[in-house]
Amino acid sequence: MLNTLYLPELRELLADGNDAQLAEFCVALHPARTADFMAGLTPAEAWDVLRWTDISHRVEIFSYFDREKQVDIVESQDVNDIAQLIAVMPPDDRVDLLHDVTSDVVTELLPLLPAGERRDILRLRAYPEESAGALMTTEFAKLGEHLTVEQALKSIEQQAQGLETINYLYVVDDGQEDRLRGVLSARQLLSAIGKPDTCLTNLMERDLVTTNVFADQEEIANKVAHFDLAAIPVVDDDHRMLGIITHDDVIDVMREEATEDAHRIAGVDPLEESYLDTHLLTLIWKRGLWLIVLFVGALLTAFLLQHYDKDLEMWRWLIFFIPLVISSGGNSGNQSATLVITGLATGDIHLSDWLRVIQRELLVGLLLGSALGVIGFIAVLGMDYSVIQAAVLPFTLLLVVIFGTLIGAALPLIFKRLGLDPALMSNPFVAGIIDLVGIAIYMTVAATLLSKPGP
Amino acid sequence: MLNTLYLPELRELLADGNDAQLAEFCVALHPARTADFMAGLTPAEAWDVLRWTDISHRVEIFSYFDREKQVDIVESQDVNDIAQLIAVMPPDDRVDLLHDVTSDVVTELLPLLPAGERRDILRLRAYPEESAGALMTTEFAKLGEHLTVEQALKSIEQQAQGLETINYLYVVDDGQEDRLRGVLSARQLLSAIGKPDTCLTNLMERDLVTTNVFADQEEIANKVAHFDLAAIPVVDDDHRMLGIITHDDVIDVMREEATEDAHRIAGVDPLEESYLDTHLLTLIWKRGLWLIVLFVGALLTAFLLQHYDKDLEMWRWLIFFIPLVISSGGNSGNQSATLVITGLATGDIHLSDWLRVIQRELLVGLLLGSALGVIGFIAVLGMDYSVIQAAVLPFTLLLVVIFGTLIGAALPLIFKRLGLDPALMSNPFVAGIIDLVGIAIYMTVAATLLSKPGP
Repeated sequence: MLNTLYLPELRELLADGNDAQLAEFCVALHPARTADFMAGLTPAEAWDVLRWTDISHRVEIFSYFDREKQVDIVESQDVNDIAQLIAVMPPDDRVDLLHDVTSDVVTELLPLLPAGERRDILRLRAYPEESAGALMTTEFAKLGEHLTVEQALKSIEQQAQGLETINYLYVVDDGQEDRLRGVLSARQLLSAIGKPDTCLTNLMERDLVTTNVFADQEEIANKVAHFDLAAIPVVDDDHRMLGIITHDDVIDVMREEATEDAHRIAGVDPLEESYLDTHLLTLIWKRGLWLIVLFVGALLTAFLLQHYDKDLEMWRWLIFFIPLVISSGGNSGNQSATLVITGLATGDIHLSDWLRVIQRELLVGLLLGSALGVIGFIAVLGMDYSVIQAAVLPFTLLLVVIFGTLIGAALPLIFKRLGLDPALMSNPFVAGIIDLVGIAIYMTVAATLLSKPGP
Repeated sequence: MLNTLYLPELRELLADGNDAQLAEFCVALHPARTADFMAGLTPAEAWDVLRWTDISHRVEIFSYFDREKQVDIVESQDVNDIAQLIAVMPPDDRVDLLHDVTSDVVTELLPLLPAGERRDILRLRAYPEESAGALMTTEFAKLGEHLTVEQALKSIEQQAQGLETINYLYVVDDGQEDRLRGVLSARQLLSAIGKPDTCLTNLMERDLVTTNVFADQEEIANKVAHFDLAAIPVVDDDHRMLGIITHDDVIDVMREEATEDAHRIAGVDPLEESYLDTHLLTLIWKRGLWLIVLFVGALLTAFLLQHYDKDLEMWRWLIFFIPLVISSGGNSGNQSATLVITGLATGDIHLSDWLRVIQRELLVGLLLGSALGVIGFIAVLGMDYSVIQAAVLPFTLLLVVIFGTLIGAALPLIFKRLGLDPALMSNPFVAGIIDLVGIAIYMTVAATLLSKPGP
């Protein structure tokens, strides 16, 4: 939502070079609000505004610009100013940003950064996308395990300036290796302020929830949600502490994964940007890809119906109910597929539950298929067909709905078992399979019920 | 996932009444892990184990039990013990729990609670479900605005025991009204520890992101995600501070809303519990409801096809392509509907963007319809039809796909405009409408192209 209310005023201040008021604008509001007010400015104008404030406010406001504006600024503005900005950005955010910047600019920027920051960037960039390493920030509150409460408070006072959060204070061994020993909440440290000589080892929790640096982001999000954590420490195979992943990144991951799943379920290859920011050709490609695959699959229904041409000529009224039969199977199959896919994603369903899932879906299919069958039978009788003709529909619907629920539930489970994303077993695929099998079931039931006994 | 590894040992300890080891079991691990280990115990056994530890560990472990076990324990165990537990539970969690407990038990419990806790429960219970009031906890770190850093540290030390989190410290006016003046992070307070006489008003942020107590939970989740907050303060219309909503509740809301949307999109009335915990009859009802509505709608396709009986008799080959035509329209419509529904839910699309959305979908429909049309044309020619016969399919597909993308994008926008949940405009509905209109388009195009000029 473009907040255009103050745009003319902002541009006027810029034109006048009114530094006092521009500086005031940058500090008066929450940085996210300031960024919203600047949404209508061009990247160059926005950067001009930010130059009037100190580096810490500049970074904060910049971090709330949308990615497109950030990339544009980094690629077009003075490389020394940008290097100064990059040097103080949170380590995880700047790596994400540089990922989207052309490599020429990155090559130009890196030598201008302090050696420590440069090494940090190169190390974080090496982790695979969607891994803990790619999500984590390397800035966290770290305390040696033999410190007392008083020493710890002093140490935190020194560290606090550069940190994103101090909700948790991580206690590491006293060697150079930073092996993670325990965790302490800021709450626990503050409530021990009256006992300054207590050693941290007597306060800290030793049973830690951690994640490996190569763990997948969806797994991490589920862990953080299950344990209600504000941040999760990231460790390597030797339990050395490398960084933390904070709640805001977990929220972003959850939203991203949920949206990706929803898109996959509808047969859209997940978009990397928001719907409106995605280039039209990208959008067409990500949809067309699956649409064409599904279309080619659906061509098989035409061949199948052609195969049943003789039967359809004999009992012409059968064709009236084809869309009804396949849509009923498709709808019940989609329900099952979506329930199983979301259940697997949130951890409510595990692969080991497969038998219970299949049993439930069989029962659901049996009951819902019967219900639709009864309604269908009554409706067809009302359309002046004979009882034997009307009986084709309920038997077909029962079988098609059971097939739909079973295949809808089984395919995501099978995909998960094969190590593939269950959401790939999207609704259109399930529906496509049910279209084919549904027609075959319908024609077989019809032929069985309607055929006169041979001579 | 049932962790049954230690169940025999646990049961043995219980049988022996081995209090030392049971007490050790309750404190050794993260409470969520302890709860996982107890997942296989009956509610009564689990409660027996918890009785061996102090109340603070008991509450923590209990909070990680699944809801069913919690309710069972509250309803079956000694009411005085339970009252003791309820009294120290986080205010938001206990209200959620009591919501699921039979009212008889609640009526019995309430008089046993300290007056302050009882009032707190009754007040929180009065807020509508899915509102900020129902989500918030009333325990948060509160500081008077004229305190110095030193006084604030003392005050926090006293408050810290009973608090869930002190990531943010809220600064309120010195009157009795608790009007919210500003916020301070624990980080900011700790980094000012060297300047003990500084007044909080000089440290705090004054531009606050807050939420009204009656705001909807989805809106709150979007706000917290946008501003990257660990907690958001809840205020009334007079800006009096009533509570906070923390990141873990926001993560739960996000997951719940995403799953609800996914279920609605697939035509399943959202489940209140996880798939496996939902009673089979509830599951059947929540699916059958929509399945039957859709089925009755789909009966119209039978009447429609009957209406075109003469044309279908004349050009019998037309029926082979009916499933192909309607599935292509349905798939493209589902893609559009899902993209718009998820875009509206995450705030990437606003109602004011409607014209851009419709323009994009028109273009996408035009291009994808043309692509499918070309493939269809070639396929049908390969099946030995005449050029004029084969031409029916591309024109139909173009029109049906455009109709699909437009109706798929427009319906969720219209529902949102009417104040309804856009996800109600679920894929099966979109597909149902497209089935009907698709058949009409197909038969009209066929009649136009294939009809010989009159005599």
